[in-house]
Amino acid sequence: MIWYKEKQDNDVIVSTRIRLARNLEKYPFTETLTNSGKEKVLGELKESIMNNNSTLSKDFTLYEMKNLKKSERQSLAEKHLISPDMAKNGFGAVFISNDENMSVMLMEEDHLRLQVIMGGNKLKEAFDLANKVDDALEENLDFAFSEKFGYLTACPTNTGTGMRASVMMHLPALTITGNIGKIISSVRSIGLTVRGLYGEGSKAYGNLYQISNQITLGVTEEEIIEKLQNITSQIAKHEIESRDELKQNDAVIDKLWRSYGTLKFARQISSMESKALLSDVILGENLGIIDIKGKKPKIELMVETEPSLIMDKKELSPEERDKKRAELLRENV
Amino acid sequence: MIWYKEKQDNDVIVSTRIRLARNLEKYPFTETLTNSGKEKVLGELKESIMNNNSTLSKDFTLYEMKNLKKSERQSLAEKHLISPDMAKNGFGAVFISNDENMSVMLMEEDHLRLQVIMGGNKLKEAFDLANKVDDALEENLDFAFSEKFGYLTACPTNTGTGMRASVMMHLPALTITGNIGKIISSVRSIGLTVRGLYGEGSKAYGNLYQISNQITLGVTEEEIIEKLQNITSQIAKHEIESRDELKQNDAVIDKLWRSYGTLKFARQISSMESKALLSDVILGENLGIIDIKGKKPKIELMVETEPSLIMDKKELSPEERDKKRAELLRENV
Repeated sequence: MIWYKEKQDNDVIVSTRIRLARNLEKYPFTETLTNSGKEKVLGELKESIMNNNSTLSKDFTLYEMKNLKKSERQSLAEKHLISPDMAKNGFGAVFISNDENMSVMLMEEDHLRLQVIMGGNKLKEAFDLANKVDDALEENLDFAFSEKFGYLTACPTNTGTGMRASVMMHLPALTITGNIGKIISSVRSIGLTVRGLYGEGSKAYGNLYQISNQITLGVTEEEIIEKLQNITSQIAKHEIESRDELKQNDAVIDKLWRSYGTLKFARQISSMESKALLSDVILGENLGIIDIKGKKPKIELMVETEPSLIMDKKELSPEERDKKRAELLRENV
Repeated sequence: MIWYKEKQDNDVIVSTRIRLARNLEKYPFTETLTNSGKEKVLGELKESIMNNNSTLSKDFTLYEMKNLKKSERQSLAEKHLISPDMAKNGFGAVFISNDENMSVMLMEEDHLRLQVIMGGNKLKEAFDLANKVDDALEENLDFAFSEKFGYLTACPTNTGTGMRASVMMHLPALTITGNIGKIISSVRSIGLTVRGLYGEGSKAYGNLYQISNQITLGVTEEEIIEKLQNITSQIAKHEIESRDELKQNDAVIDKLWRSYGTLKFARQISSMESKALLSDVILGENLGIIDIKGKKPKIELMVETEPSLIMDKKELSPEERDKKRAELLRENV
C-alpha cells in the first residue's frame, strides 16, 4: 500500500524511505552522456528489467516520462515515487511496484535509483526489501563498484553504500515550543541531515521533517540504519514530551481548534496553508483535544491535496485547485 | 423588548434611538453644581418621577449608580441603556422601562436625558414615544426653555430641540468594497454625523455605524427625523447594492465562511474579534451564502458577548471572558 495510506502505528514517524543509487559499469554517468547516449542506456535498463528479470517485470509497471503530462509527472513526485527533478526534467523512466511501495528511477542523476517507501517506522523492513530488489537487479546488470570505495555514483556524496535512508517525522510540538532548532543542530552535528518535505532546500511545510544519513562512505548500510533508528527514536521521545507541555496551553488549544474550523468551512485553501492546518489538527488529535473523527487520515489528506494530485488528470487553474482542495478538506477532515 | 432582541425587519438598520436632553429651569447645569448641589437636583428629579408621575413610576425601575458595581454599570452601557460616561463616573441614576425600550438618565451631562431605543428602522415610532414621555415628564418638571433658542442644554451643540436621533446601521459590504469612505463624507457634508458603535470617537467595530443629526438649533424635530430617514434609506440602498457585487467574490465568500468556522470552533475570542466575525456571518447570511441556522441572532450575540454582559455579575479575568465568550458563540452561532 502506498506509504501515506498505511495505518500509522506511531504518531510521530510518518514514513520511512530507503534509496539506493546505482550506475552501469560500462557507461559514463548520466550528466556526461550525450542525448543519444542517455537514450541508449535508458533502453538497455528498461530492456533488462522488463524482459530479463522475472521478479521485477511481474510486480512493476513502467512509466516513461516523455509519455506523461507535466501534471502526471508532478503527481508521481507528490506521491514521492519519483524525484521532483525527474518530474521537472521530463526525461527518463520509472518502474513503480503495483503496491506503490517501490520505484526504480532510470536516468535521473544516477543511471538507476531504487527506492522503497513505507508508511510509519519501518527502517529495517524497508532496508531488507531494498536489498532484495537490489540483488534481483544485479542478476542482470553490472553496477559500477570499487573494492576501495564501494558503489560509484554521479555525486561523490552518495559514493560507498549509495544509500540514503530517511525518516519523515511530524514534529508540530517541537516546532511550536521552538525546541526544533536545538534538535536540528544536534542531529546535524552527528552527520545526519534534516530537511523539509520535498528534500534539499525545502521548508518544513506541515511540520514534516526528513531525517536522513549524510555519510555513505566508510560505513556499512547496517550502521547507517542503526544510527538513524536511534536518533529518530530520541527525537520522537522529545516530540511526545513537548506535546505533554502543550496540553494545558490555552492559546495553542485555541489555535488548533481554529485550524479545524478553517478546514471545515473555508472555500479556498492553498496547498501550503492546507498542510499547516492539517498539521494543527493532527496535533489536536494527538493531544486528545480534537476528538471529531474525520473521514480520512490527515496525512493522507496532506498528500491528496497536493497541487497535481488535486487536479486528478484534469488541468485546473491555481484558483480552481484552491477551491477543489477546500471542498475535499471540508468533506474529509 | 430590548432593541437587540427585537426581530429585525431590515438587514441593514439595526436599531433606532431618540435622545432628548433636558435641564431644570431653576438650577445651574450639572457641571457647574457642587457635589451637594448635584445630590439635591438628583433627589428632586427622582422624587418627582417616582412619586408624582403615575405613568413613569409604574413602568420604570430606578437604578442608582452608587449602588451598582462597575461591571453592572458597564452592562447597562453595553445594552445602550446608559452612556459610557455615566457607567465610568458612577454618579447619578437611571430609570429604565420594564421593556428596556426607554431610559431616563439623571445627572449626566444634562440634568435629565430621556432615551428611546428600538430594534430596526423605527424613527417615527421612537420619536412619538419619546415625545409622549417627555410630555409626561413636563407635567411635574419645569425645563429650561428659551423662546428664542428652544431647550437649553449643558453643551450648546444640543441646544434647540435637545434631540439626538440616531440610526445604527450594519454596513459590511460598503466597508469591504471601500465605498464607506465616500458615504461618510457625503453624510457629513449635509450636517449629519457618522460614528462607531459606542458613540463619539469609537471605531466601527463589527461594521456598525451610527448615523445621527448634528444640528439641533433652528430646525424642528420633524425635519431632523425626515432628513435622517431619507439619508439612512439611501445608505441602506447602497449597502444592498454593494452586497450584490460581493455575491460572486470568491475571496469574500471564503473569508465569511472562515469567520463562521472560527466562531464555531475557537476556544478564546476577544470582544473586538467576535464582532468582526459575527459581522462576517451576518453578511454571509444576507448574501444567502451561509445557510446554517444558529440558535441566536448574530446582533444579539454581539451584545451578549460584550465584556461586562459576558460576566453576568461574576467577576472574570479577560482570559476567562475570552473563553466564556468563545463557548457562548460556539453554542449559539
